[in-house]
Amino acid sequence: MRQLIIFACLLGTTALAGEGKWTPQQVLELGPGWVKQQGFTLPLATLWDKKKGTGLLSNAVQLPGCSGSFVSADGLLITNHHCVVSILQEHSTPAANLFEDGYLAKSRADEKASKAFRIQVPRAFRDVTAQVRPQLDAAKSDLERFLAMETAQKTLVAQCEKEAPGPGATATRCTFAAFDGGVSFALTVFDELSDVRLVWAPPRGVGEYGGEIDNWTWPRHTGDFSLVRAYTSKGEPYHPQHFFPLSAAGVKPGDAVAVLGYPGVSYRGLLAREMEERAQKFFPAREAWTTEWIALLEEATKGSPEGTIAVSDDLRSLANVRKNAQGQVAGIARGKILQKQRDAEAQVVAWATPKPAQKGAVEARQQLEALLDQKLQRWEHDFALDFLGSSSKALGWPVLLARLAGERAKPDLEREPGYQDRDLARTREKLARDQKKLFVPADKKATLAWIKRALALPKDQRIAAIDARFATAKDDAELSKRITALYEKSKVLDADARSKMVDELPEALKARKDALLELGFALDAERKALKDQRDGWSGAALKHRPVWRAAVTGFAGKPVAPDANSSLRVTFCRVKGYVPRDGVEMKPQTTLAGMIAKHTGLQPFVVPARLLEAARAGKLGRWKDAKLGDVPVAFLSDCDTTGGNSGSPAIDATGKLVGVNFDRVWENIANDFGYNPEIARNVNADARYALWQLEEVEGATDLLTELGVARKP
Amino acid sequence: MRQLIIFACLLGTTALAGEGKWTPQQVLELGPGWVKQQGFTLPLATLWDKKKGTGLLSNAVQLPGCSGSFVSADGLLITNHHCVVSILQEHSTPAANLFEDGYLAKSRADEKASKAFRIQVPRAFRDVTAQVRPQLDAAKSDLERFLAMETAQKTLVAQCEKEAPGPGATATRCTFAAFDGGVSFALTVFDELSDVRLVWAPPRGVGEYGGEIDNWTWPRHTGDFSLVRAYTSKGEPYHPQHFFPLSAAGVKPGDAVAVLGYPGVSYRGLLAREMEERAQKFFPAREAWTTEWIALLEEATKGSPEGTIAVSDDLRSLANVRKNAQGQVAGIARGKILQKQRDAEAQVVAWATPKPAQKGAVEARQQLEALLDQKLQRWEHDFALDFLGSSSKALGWPVLLARLAGERAKPDLEREPGYQDRDLARTREKLARDQKKLFVPADKKATLAWIKRALALPKDQRIAAIDARFATAKDDAELSKRITALYEKSKVLDADARSKMVDELPEALKARKDALLELGFALDAERKALKDQRDGWSGAALKHRPVWRAAVTGFAGKPVAPDANSSLRVTFCRVKGYVPRDGVEMKPQTTLAGMIAKHTGLQPFVVPARLLEAARAGKLGRWKDAKLGDVPVAFLSDCDTTGGNSGSPAIDATGKLVGVNFDRVWENIANDFGYNPEIARNVNADARYALWQLEEVEGATDLLTELGVARKP
Repeated sequence: MRQLIIFACLLGTTALAGEGKWTPQQVLELGPGWVKQQGFTLPLATLWDKKKGTGLLSNAVQLPGCSGSFVSADGLLITNHHCVVSILQEHSTPAANLFEDGYLAKSRADEKASKAFRIQVPRAFRDVTAQVRPQLDAAKSDLERFLAMETAQKTLVAQCEKEAPGPGATATRCTFAAFDGGVSFALTVFDELSDVRLVWAPPRGVGEYGGEIDNWTWPRHTGDFSLVRAYTSKGEPYHPQHFFPLSAAGVKPGDAVAVLGYPGVSYRGLLAREMEERAQKFFPAREAWTTEWIALLEEATKGSPEGTIAVSDDLRSLANVRKNAQGQVAGIARGKILQKQRDAEAQVVAWATPKPAQKGAVEARQQLEALLDQKLQRWEHDFALDFLGSSSKALGWPVLLARLAGERAKPDLEREPGYQDRDLARTREKLARDQKKLFVPADKKATLAWIKRALALPKDQRIAAIDARFATAKDDAELSKRITALYEKSKVLDADARSKMVDELPEALKARKDALLELGFALDAERKALKDQRDGWSGAALKHRPVWRAAVTGFAGKPVAPDANSSLRVTFCRVKGYVPRDGVEMKPQTTLAGMIAKHTGLQPFVVPARLLEAARAGKLGRWKDAKLGDVPVAFLSDCDTTGGNSGSPAIDATGKLVGVNFDRVWENIANDFGYNPEIARNVNADARYALWQLEEVEGATDLLTELGVARKP
Repeated sequence: MRQLIIFACLLGTTALAGEGKWTPQQVLELGPGWVKQQGFTLPLATLWDKKKGTGLLSNAVQLPGCSGSFVSADGLLITNHHCVVSILQEHSTPAANLFEDGYLAKSRADEKASKAFRIQVPRAFRDVTAQVRPQLDAAKSDLERFLAMETAQKTLVAQCEKEAPGPGATATRCTFAAFDGGVSFALTVFDELSDVRLVWAPPRGVGEYGGEIDNWTWPRHTGDFSLVRAYTSKGEPYHPQHFFPLSAAGVKPGDAVAVLGYPGVSYRGLLAREMEERAQKFFPAREAWTTEWIALLEEATKGSPEGTIAVSDDLRSLANVRKNAQGQVAGIARGKILQKQRDAEAQVVAWATPKPAQKGAVEARQQLEALLDQKLQRWEHDFALDFLGSSSKALGWPVLLARLAGERAKPDLEREPGYQDRDLARTREKLARDQKKLFVPADKKATLAWIKRALALPKDQRIAAIDARFATAKDDAELSKRITALYEKSKVLDADARSKMVDELPEALKARKDALLELGFALDAERKALKDQRDGWSGAALKHRPVWRAAVTGFAGKPVAPDANSSLRVTFCRVKGYVPRDGVEMKPQTTLAGMIAKHTGLQPFVVPARLLEAARAGKLGRWKDAKLGDVPVAFLSDCDTTGGNSGSPAIDATGKLVGVNFDRVWENIANDFGYNPEIARNVNADARYALWQLEEVEGATDLLTELGVARKP
């Protein structure tokens, strides 16, 4: 722990209000004065106890892909509705659709246990830099350095997970994270709880209100929350070390809040030129390719209800990727993020250049740029290969099957992440389920489009497997003919045949003489070569980036929040609206009346009947905000969040839970590259919206008591 | 004049702040206290001199389809950029595109005279009810009553226009208007000035910035203004009786403003059931039909650059009609306009029923509803016929040609309005110009679609001309075959042949034995029958509506603004933002920075280079609003405007010009049916935006001096 704090001291640049996904250790470094400045009245020692190495902030627990927090002494936990969809599906039957209708356990006996849903409660935070760094330094090549880190990580995690779990927990789970590209490394030690039961999920018309249409937007009217309860391995309610009682008072504009959780990944530590590659090549290419795919899927399924249904999921997902890409480009431009990063780098270089001790930093930066130049030389080739999985089933599935077989041939521990035995069930299920997404005429069009893109690659960036099969085709008609022949000479698109292929070793697969599988093996070989190349690049970055980043933070002379890496972070901010463009102001809060006004009776805008009735009858109870004159539904704050923060608690200055984070606004997507205080806004579901439903719609008085907001007699 | 004032006294119901397109006479009736309440410090006698029968308010002059106002003693006049497009086109050459680049006359000698552009300055307002009403009352049938009014109108206007024009004017022009469906009638006597010269028009990137995309929306960044100068018949600058000096101080949120001009038409005097017909039948049908046409034109021109260009104007116009229809339906629902009208009517009926003197009013209302019932019985038939002109060229042109020929056979004065000799040149030109909008494959699809709609009409509402030709077709293929045959047996779609047809009498046209023309004559006969039916309905309404409206205003007991009828009106309001939906607030002002932020380099968002340069260099001069920190571009106010108010001056409490009205927000389209104070907002170009350009971009110091805002030495 101490070492991690020392590294924290090395980090730097003045943080803007709201900016910074701080580690708990950095919060200690920033000090009680700073925390008070953020509007927090709780003593710093309560937020984080230096001796224990945990604190109130560690009441941010990790859920699959999400965050959450305990809200009662009896293991009640709040998170997003979209984080528990798997439990809702698990318990849904044709007669009772929990996703559609929601669920409220009338008593603890009625809580719905889940087979697979697990949560991880952090128990300890451990700096392991001293165990990792020497092994990296000893490596004789870039690839070796990469592999040394993989080994160190696997070893440390395996070792850590042998430790005895805390009281009531099922197992110890450990996660490994690199900070600042390798300046430091840490393990988070979790108590895993595997008995998690659904207590309350609102109906779809609350939890998913607005759906994809409202996704990434404001104003928002989604009640994206749910309650589950954690049980010990003995089946008793779990008693967490900390919990956040719910606030009945709620928030108002300007109030201080903090959002805690496990943000996944961000890119603020990239060099300006690396960001440029994202802003000027990667995201524009993503936008162009997804736009082409969307158009061709729409065209190929026009007039076919069967085709339209089949491609609808893929279309939605492509549209999402495109919306994100557009948002990244727009946000990077709007925030002048490239220019800011260039200026910041120039300052660090000017500071480091005359210092003999920093000579390595200036060189490291050059090395990182040289590495980027290498990537740029084969950029189009690599991008095309990466897009394979989003192109067509006839290209994506064979490559996946080839890869599965190749990895299966290795001992379990040596396989690529995601291809170990424990991952197989999920992959098998997905490959079976995705059959319904196949519409052959559209798939052929997508295959043709990808192959044409591959054939248009620069001469020195060709994909051999494609050239061998298609380079001699004279025109589109000829290409289409050869593609059709491939489809005809393959069983990959047949669900039954494919389900058998999942479990076969390479020899068996190859013996099938299946044309698409043969193409899959050939493409997978190129993909594997690319992976090796990338592992080498990663190994080189592990050498250079920490040197450069140490200079950046050394120059700053104070804590600089490291990029997100799925480790515990806290961000302090204020409830605040924003001006998305001249003449328009987004207010920081939305209301029940606004939610009702959006009701169309068509998905995703169908307000549940009981809620509509209560709202129209003016049954607002004590949850009416005096200033708003209505029940608040969602609020904005300028917290610094990203993917992984779904379900993160938003707490007020006294440590009470006032909301649950569930999204960012579209203008703020490029936040991953730089914080722009003008439009950096995260979206929280207001806790009072949940409490209003529990009290006025559901009559769940026991729950309200447990949440600390029992009605005064 | 006195009589008109008496009628004004009969009108009523409490007006909301901002509500009311008042006649000048009503402003007198509302009194000085009321005017002061609106924030106006000018004495009422200055706004309107009872003795003279004119006043400052009569410095709202009429332009073709627009309004405008004098802004200097030397006849300088401000209006919208979009109101002078015809002058810009007149003077554009391939080498100098005034619409694209704008124009500034360096001296008076450089001002660009226009051949056709005329303005009308009001000289007197005359109540003519006593001359009209007896002729209506003497009519023996509804149709006779309608014709009696047509005759009265024509006679009064002809008589009036014989009067000598005022000093410097070319001619006297008179317009006739019915108030409240015939409660009163008035003539406005205008001095026509036919020597109007272009002084300044900003480039397209200012005057039309945002184009169709921003049309009807907020935030808005269009500098929709232009300056022209009126000259007397002797070629000297015209000296108007009144003018509005420009305000250098501008406006801020909450400031009082008034907008003056000639709003065209509104429908607040309709019965609730008549509004229902609009909201539930007419606008939804418009939306459905235009949606079908848009889809079929897009489909039929897909992949054809030629077709795409040909239908682009029609597509834009259909999209506009659809956007309007959707806005009307949404706005009527949002403002609960039907329910409010029902409630208001019920109150009037309850008030009138026990009064023997009002017996006629209750009956009149029933008669108007009976009239509506008659219309509803043949509604689908009539709507289909009305849509002919928007359907296809092959249907629209022949009907127009048949009608032209039919009207030409009559003496000029007996023809339908729009078909007199003076209208011919424009019609001929349009028929020639529209050739470029013809794309036969798309046109055939549109013809097919209309015919299918006609064949699907209820049994008792058939269109005989269509039944005769198409009812026996078995399927679409057969219909298409017969349509193709029509196209083949016609010369109507040939531009040269058509240009000859324009001047032929019915016999000559019929002698051509042209299949489409024959269909055109048959359809025109049905259209003519519909017109006769409608004239009868109008005649009936002329009997009943005034009786009902007199009761409505009698019940109110105070001035009620009558529906717009292209006569001079004034509306008093405040600079004010609005909340279009929960969580979003529209600020009342936009800025230069906001305009620059929208610049994409692609139409309609191309900021002119010199303006971009000046803005980026921070050359804001004295036009920077301290509070906004920037040059203001546009502002919202809750004035009660409609079509015809384009170019209307917005003046402040002291009679200085602060802006030029040019649009309403989309939420406010249904304003024509009822005023909803929450979202009733008109859009004004801020005068300071014009002044900033003249001073900082154009260096037009003489003009600034003439406008009363010379820079202090």
